[in-house]
Amino acid sequence: MSIAPLAWKRLIRFIPRSGGQALIGQPTDANQDVGLASREGQEIRAEVFDGSSVLQAGKPTGKIELVERLLSPLAMHEVGTIRCIGLNYQKHADEAHAEVPKVPVLFMKPETALGDPFPAPTIIPKFTLQHESADWESELAVVIGKTAKNVSEAEALSYVLGYTASNDVSSRFSQFEQSQWCFSKSFDGACPIGPAIVSTELIPDVSALHMRGLKNGKVMQNSGLDDLIFSVPKIISFISQGTSLRPGTIILTGTPSGVGGMMNPKEHLREGDEFAVEILPHIGTLVNRFEHEK
Amino acid sequence: MSIAPLAWKRLIRFIPRSGGQALIGQPTDANQDVGLASREGQEIRAEVFDGSSVLQAGKPTGKIELVERLLSPLAMHEVGTIRCIGLNYQKHADEAHAEVPKVPVLFMKPETALGDPFPAPTIIPKFTLQHESADWESELAVVIGKTAKNVSEAEALSYVLGYTASNDVSSRFSQFEQSQWCFSKSFDGACPIGPAIVSTELIPDVSALHMRGLKNGKVMQNSGLDDLIFSVPKIISFISQGTSLRPGTIILTGTPSGVGGMMNPKEHLREGDEFAVEILPHIGTLVNRFEHEK
Repeated sequence: MSIAPLAWKRLIRFIPRSGGQALIGQPTDANQDVGLASREGQEIRAEVFDGSSVLQAGKPTGKIELVERLLSPLAMHEVGTIRCIGLNYQKHADEAHAEVPKVPVLFMKPETALGDPFPAPTIIPKFTLQHESADWESELAVVIGKTAKNVSEAEALSYVLGYTASNDVSSRFSQFEQSQWCFSKSFDGACPIGPAIVSTELIPDVSALHMRGLKNGKVMQNSGLDDLIFSVPKIISFISQGTSLRPGTIILTGTPSGVGGMMNPKEHLREGDEFAVEILPHIGTLVNRFEHEK
Repeated sequence: MSIAPLAWKRLIRFIPRSGGQALIGQPTDANQDVGLASREGQEIRAEVFDGSSVLQAGKPTGKIELVERLLSPLAMHEVGTIRCIGLNYQKHADEAHAEVPKVPVLFMKPETALGDPFPAPTIIPKFTLQHESADWESELAVVIGKTAKNVSEAEALSYVLGYTASNDVSSRFSQFEQSQWCFSKSFDGACPIGPAIVSTELIPDVSALHMRGLKNGKVMQNSGLDDLIFSVPKIISFISQGTSLRPGTIILTGTPSGVGGMMNPKEHLREGDEFAVEILPHIGTLVNRFEHEK
């Protein structure tokens, strides 16, 4: 199976202002950063597609809807286990005083970690020591479009449906309490993604992208994607060995330097904070506001 | 929601000899080890239930079917991300020269790792260095029956649907190539479970169970479940903090001492090998034969 030429360049999943169920659509203004627009309360218009999933978006219907609320581009039942790569930016490995890994370092989040963009809150659970543990990790997320197993680096990108922004929200307290990272990054909502998924047609080479992470508007992370240690094709090829990556599989590709727990003094995400992951051009901004679990 | 009193004590999912789709049923001989019987080519009879999943088994129909082929008690679309606890037996931590962890060490396998019991083969993929890397880990698996989040140890067992046997099949080569264990244990089929799921009514206390791991009939692992460092209630309570464990979530609880990679000389699983995980009383034996990916 090969993916048919896509009828879209950027897709969102959203609740329409007219009410009813979530729709799939393409923003009518190709230059609008819909995540930022949502945060600023600006109107977002999208042309509705007749499919019910970004994995099978179908055809444009010509019908225009106003967006009431942006959702993560994929629903929880579509994603399966989320793959994440750690220590994949040279300068982040440096700040973590970690050796540069020989192979892509893989950990996982459960599908229940999936979170929506603003205005949905990201809940910092009690176990994280809410005032001094939750941290951000701005990341480029890859979405697999057709089942990939034992794929070569050369063919890897042909399995990609598109790219979006993500935040690998982490509890540093829990992360360093054990050798494995999964628990500290797997709580409900610890993987917000979106809002737009952008086709590989718009982004033939991710190393031309630039990512920033902003806490309450202040730039904390600021890196070109050319600082990636393992490229997107290398990651896909490596983690697909012996292993089926099904359509809808999300792969977080690592975070650049500038995470809060490595700063001096440390910074954390707390009740009322807002964090923005901006990836330009094309992808735009994932905004999340944080609340403490009561 | 509370789980209604179960209409079963042991359930299997199977293809009936009469043909057609997978069925849910209870073996008619309460004392038969169905995994072993399947391996020996003995007949297995089961009373069919009217539900299509062990999560909603429904009622017994009175109809008896002969089993053609045993399946994992849960289908892939039912399980979500599989949770696994590492270093959870004192003597295994000793043989691994690892410090006893302060908290349950959590890693994950994707749902695609789920595998069926004998006669389905477990495929050892090429990336594992097939002749000198694949290893067994006999484990008790817990299956969650209703959504568990922020549960206490005292109430944890009320969220358990039942127990089954599992093998946390691992590539030692890949495991020690990076700090995180997920990749080395996530290949397709690296998590065979089953065949029977046994209700908590039959097993009020897992510490009374005894587990053996047998390679081609030779005992490699041999331990009481009273050697667990973190109990089943402790594990469920810990990993449910901030995190929804949905119905169908499988939790592997760690392996006792006697894994191949820690032996001197090392032993591995290779083409044609057979490995049996036996947990008695009640649960029975998970048999898997191994083949190399071609």
